Amino acid sequence: MSNILLLSVGTRNKIIQYFKENNKSGKVIATDMSEIAPAIYEADKHYIVPRITDNNYLDIILDICKKEKMDGILSLIDPELSLLAMNKEKFDTLGVKIVGSSYELCEMSLNKINMFNWLNEHGYNCAKSYDKKEEFYKDLDNGDISFPVFVKPVEGSASILISKVDNRDEIELLFSKHDGLMIQEFLKGQEIGADVYIDLISKEVVSIFTKKKIVMRAGETDKSVSFKDEKLFALIKKFVKEAGYTGQIDIDIFDVDGDYYISEVNPRFGGGYPHAYECGVNNIKLIYKNLNGEENEYSSEYEEGVYMMKYNEVCMKKLGE
Amino acid sequence: MSNILLLSVGTRNKIIQYFKENNKSGKVIATDMSEIAPAIYEADKHYIVPRITDNNYLDIILDICKKEKMDGILSLIDPELSLLAMNKEKFDTLGVKIVGSSYELCEMSLNKINMFNWLNEHGYNCAKSYDKKEEFYKDLDNGDISFPVFVKPVEGSASILISKVDNRDEIELLFSKHDGLMIQEFLKGQEIGADVYIDLISKEVVSIFTKKKIVMRAGETDKSVSFKDEKLFALIKKFVKEAGYTGQIDIDIFDVDGDYYISEVNPRFGGGYPHAYECGVNNIKLIYKNLNGEENEYSSEYEEGVYMMKYNEVCMKKLGE
Repeated sequence: MSNILLLSVGTRNKIIQYFKENNKSGKVIATDMSEIAPAIYEADKHYIVPRITDNNYLDIILDICKKEKMDGILSLIDPELSLLAMNKEKFDTLGVKIVGSSYELCEMSLNKINMFNWLNEHGYNCAKSYDKKEEFYKDLDNGDISFPVFVKPVEGSASILISKVDNRDEIELLFSKHDGLMIQEFLKGQEIGADVYIDLISKEVVSIFTKKKIVMRAGETDKSVSFKDEKLFALIKKFVKEAGYTGQIDIDIFDVDGDYYISEVNPRFGGGYPHAYECGVNNIKLIYKNLNGEENEYSSEYEEGVYMMKYNEVCMKKLGE
Repeated sequence: MSNILLLSVGTRNKIIQYFKENNKSGKVIATDMSEIAPAIYEADKHYIVPRITDNNYLDIILDICKKEKMDGILSLIDPELSLLAMNKEKFDTLGVKIVGSSYELCEMSLNKINMFNWLNEHGYNCAKSYDKKEEFYKDLDNGDISFPVFVKPVEGSASILISKVDNRDEIELLFSKHDGLMIQEFLKGQEIGADVYIDLISKEVVSIFTKKKIVMRAGETDKSVSFKDEKLFALIKKFVKEAGYTGQIDIDIFDVDGDYYISEVNPRFGGGYPHAYECGVNNIKLIYKNLNGEENEYSSEYEEGVYMMKYNEVCMKKLGE
């Protein structure tokens, strides 16, 4: 069986548990920069490492790979995906396969304007996006877009600094206070999450799971319900193939009156992946088969109408023991 | 063993699990208005009930108590605490004991200005609070308070609509947009949570657990570490006794350069109670003893320096089955 290194695991305990369940003879090793990242305690062994921006970070990870005879590696946080992809050759030399996408795709997925430009040029429905407010005002005057719109950072994680905005004054205020902002069309529709695995050997989509996200009031934990639509599956296959993603990805999609809009891609396990796994969509097994040199066949066997509801579990630890 | 009804359980799965663990022969029954509240599926039996503001709500709860021969009842959400307390006699008639505080204390705890006035009049350290911005401006001009301050709703839950504010313009903007706001001094210090149980029979504090909250970046799940300080325990005992709380309560406290400031009281199980329970502070057992007519003795046996780290567990359900 293969040994795998999971980086920056944070609170993603379920993911580590799933890797352990599917790997009875190999090692599952986890890293994090914090001793109070609960997911490290699920692994067979863990390492506390520096922040990913530290000069020695990459060498430390490569050393762990060598020492622990790792066969595969993946990260659970966005800013680390490009770092791994950029250093693919160094991992290749050690015989360590990165479960992830190319450097160019990791970078594109992080930058909402680059993503928009790609989607737009390739003819996919997507939310209109502007990094220059003058271009937005021009479209506003032409009637091509209307308030409300979202103002959000071009790069960076989901919910930080996102504002729903109703007028020019608020846009001027936000753009004067912060750099690196963009304006994005407000899509009114059902939000959908897709968990997709693209075989590392054949480069074919071999697993798709889609769920409707159930929006709750603030602070409420996530809930979602599984569903299938062949039209959506066909769109996902076409998009993923054309863009060239590989490994595990998570796609945010909106259903606007029956038309699917691609909103965002995270080229890693999304926070909602446990829904797929608990419905029998076991992409961890597919990863281990790939690390073992075997190709996977396409399958999307799961039941529709199954709800996932998150709640808080606790991990207890006396440190220094 | 006693039968207990837990209301509006939402995502509080751990609490239901703890009641089940401590009650092998009695029934644990849960309610919620939603079928996708995962905690209902932990109970021996559950009821889907209307919203608490529904005219029939109280009668439906009383009917469940009668039909299921309940001995005790408690709610896990703030707006329901007063409703139960207000109708204490109706529950008494059915032989159902409310695990909670008096109507007056539930109402006072919900309203941050009333709470401030009480604390201030009784000589406790607490954050200066103003529901009239003119009074705040007066103190600001006198140098009795300075920016930044918090603007938050006088009533209502923790994180909704709370802003950290740096100048008069922002205060004017917020007060012009929303009703029911207040201004609160920004306390710079270590945030502490206390889980306290006050015996329903002797009215004495019989259990205290305190933890330091570890503040993380947005979106990160809660972490905390257990500690003990006799000075803090003495303050908690004095405050709780003087105010007259009963049953389980959760107190937010700030340690500002060695002085303890009381910030907020929730007269129910707080979201961080699993930390106490997992450290052996089993207030559920105390509740069952009280329901059985027995008084509890004071104890605060737990280890310091134990970390609690939350992570997401998932509950899966195909509805309509």
